[in-house]
Amino acid sequence: MPELRKDPIIGRWVIISTERGMRPTDFTMMEEKKKGGFCPFCPGNEGATPPEILCYRENSTKPNTPGWSLRVVANKFPALRVEGELNREGEGVYDRMNGIGAHEVIIESPYHSDTLSTISVKNFEDLLWAFRDRMIDLRKDARLKYVLIFKNQGESAGASLEHTHSQLIALPIVPKRVTEELEGAKAYYSYKERCIFCDIIRQETKQGSRVISENQDFIVIAPFAPRSPFETWILPKRHSCAFDDGQKHEFENLARIFSDTLKRLDKVLSTPPYNFILHTAPFSNGCGDSYHWHFEIVPKLVKIAGFEWGSGFYINPTPPEESARFMREVKL
Amino acid sequence: MPELRKDPIIGRWVIISTERGMRPTDFTMMEEKKKGGFCPFCPGNEGATPPEILCYRENSTKPNTPGWSLRVVANKFPALRVEGELNREGEGVYDRMNGIGAHEVIIESPYHSDTLSTISVKNFEDLLWAFRDRMIDLRKDARLKYVLIFKNQGESAGASLEHTHSQLIALPIVPKRVTEELEGAKAYYSYKERCIFCDIIRQETKQGSRVISENQDFIVIAPFAPRSPFETWILPKRHSCAFDDGQKHEFENLARIFSDTLKRLDKVLSTPPYNFILHTAPFSNGCGDSYHWHFEIVPKLVKIAGFEWGSGFYINPTPPEESARFMREVKL
Repeated sequence: MPELRKDPIIGRWVIISTERGMRPTDFTMMEEKKKGGFCPFCPGNEGATPPEILCYRENSTKPNTPGWSLRVVANKFPALRVEGELNREGEGVYDRMNGIGAHEVIIESPYHSDTLSTISVKNFEDLLWAFRDRMIDLRKDARLKYVLIFKNQGESAGASLEHTHSQLIALPIVPKRVTEELEGAKAYYSYKERCIFCDIIRQETKQGSRVISENQDFIVIAPFAPRSPFETWILPKRHSCAFDDGQKHEFENLARIFSDTLKRLDKVLSTPPYNFILHTAPFSNGCGDSYHWHFEIVPKLVKIAGFEWGSGFYINPTPPEESARFMREVKL
Repeated sequence: MPELRKDPIIGRWVIISTERGMRPTDFTMMEEKKKGGFCPFCPGNEGATPPEILCYRENSTKPNTPGWSLRVVANKFPALRVEGELNREGEGVYDRMNGIGAHEVIIESPYHSDTLSTISVKNFEDLLWAFRDRMIDLRKDARLKYVLIFKNQGESAGASLEHTHSQLIALPIVPKRVTEELEGAKAYYSYKERCIFCDIIRQETKQGSRVISENQDFIVIAPFAPRSPFETWILPKRHSCAFDDGQKHEFENLARIFSDTLKRLDKVLSTPPYNFILHTAPFSNGCGDSYHWHFEIVPKLVKIAGFEWGSGFYINPTPPEESARFMREVKL
């Protein structure tokens, strides 16, 4: 059973994924993976993954067979397990609980060579609906408090399989970084009685220098204090704390602008590896007025993560006004 | 002039290193660097670095010439500048100040092929004294609040030059990660009237399963909730909040156990890339009773930093009890 452990000083939870149980030689042998070969995410290989949890497919095709455009399956090597009790317990100064939760993979296209920059806007919208459908389903499990949705694109951003996919981890705790964001937004709201993200959108729209693009429902910006070159945020213009609260026209416009943003990144930076993370409110939060959901996209361009990851201090060689200009002006 | 910018939601400061001004093509061309070739840190090439700030050298040899065993110089491409005023200012919801501070390089050995695992214990002790000497000197500058001392070992941990060196960044702000640690320790102290690190040392000594080694003055452990496989902490047994408060016999024993720990890491994981960071109290802190300085060593073994860095949530495939056992039992 995997275990959730809390750092007693910082309060950060980590998953100790005991079932993967990596030994020293596993790391030294973890060199470059070969491309090509068998792909468990390609149509025809549905038997190589756990069964479908959710699937968008042509009528008259059967579950776990070809004919799908998007599939959600359990991760074959899950960091967390659905079955069992939390069993929160202390051990001297330390706290732990069982690694209860869900770890799912969203296979974004049947075509092995697709990326999120090459799939159609319609398929991109389906991906957003899949995120929403899974969140709504997982919300029913009272043990779970947060759903972390993210994508690792490219091997150096952590993708272990080439076939385009994103991931979902449902957790019995709220990650520290999310709590910090909620608390920061709440503190601002207490003081100003305005949402800080709404204020950021207003200021960015007025200044213009960090705006990459916008449409009726969304704005894309390079944040004022980016950790990494070309860090990019996509924010809904309508104030809302929860992604799964989105309306049909919003998901359409999000698919359009998200797809456009990734195409720009690919063009400006020659198809860089990147991570994106959905920032949305916990299941029960009481932060409706102060928090504002959004996506953060972080290209993996510089190799300095190790130190900065450990110190929480970042050196970014590219001003966001510069990166926004490149992203805004690139011809697609 | 580089700029310090604060994320308005999370409160994290980042350095926008405008003078490096990297453009998109700089990243795409930043592929593997060639080994060999001219090394600005080798003896005889002293003119290729800024002049010595501190140097341990044979008597009768001249500054900025060969004959040294350790040299501290300003970083040629500094993230921060010593000259100028802070000029703290707001811009709507945002806060910024000039990038005032120091960015220095500690060249740990004259020999190009050395690493911290191969230099003598005596030379390792000199490195610790150099850290201390620089901290004490920088403390005099009232604009500075914190000195971040760290090492990137290996290219994938962020080292841009092969020749063994560590770095120092003196900052006009206290990094968020440090503040969090100070506050966590303070909260524990308020509740228990004991230092949490002292409690950890007591509990680890009693349990034993996460202890790697110890000597008269220091203990080396795998922390209970490590972010990364083989994360390793070196803690002084004597309670003290500031590294530069160390006594002679402590620096001797720290050099011994630090060198031993890196040798173990190299043996168990085949000379892995790693980062280490000195965690010590800010210049004026008032946390003397609650905080406890220490080193954190994080080997860079898994490529998942991108996502975890963004979410503050970590999945670690190696239980610390396992990594401690490998580190403890390895034959040197």
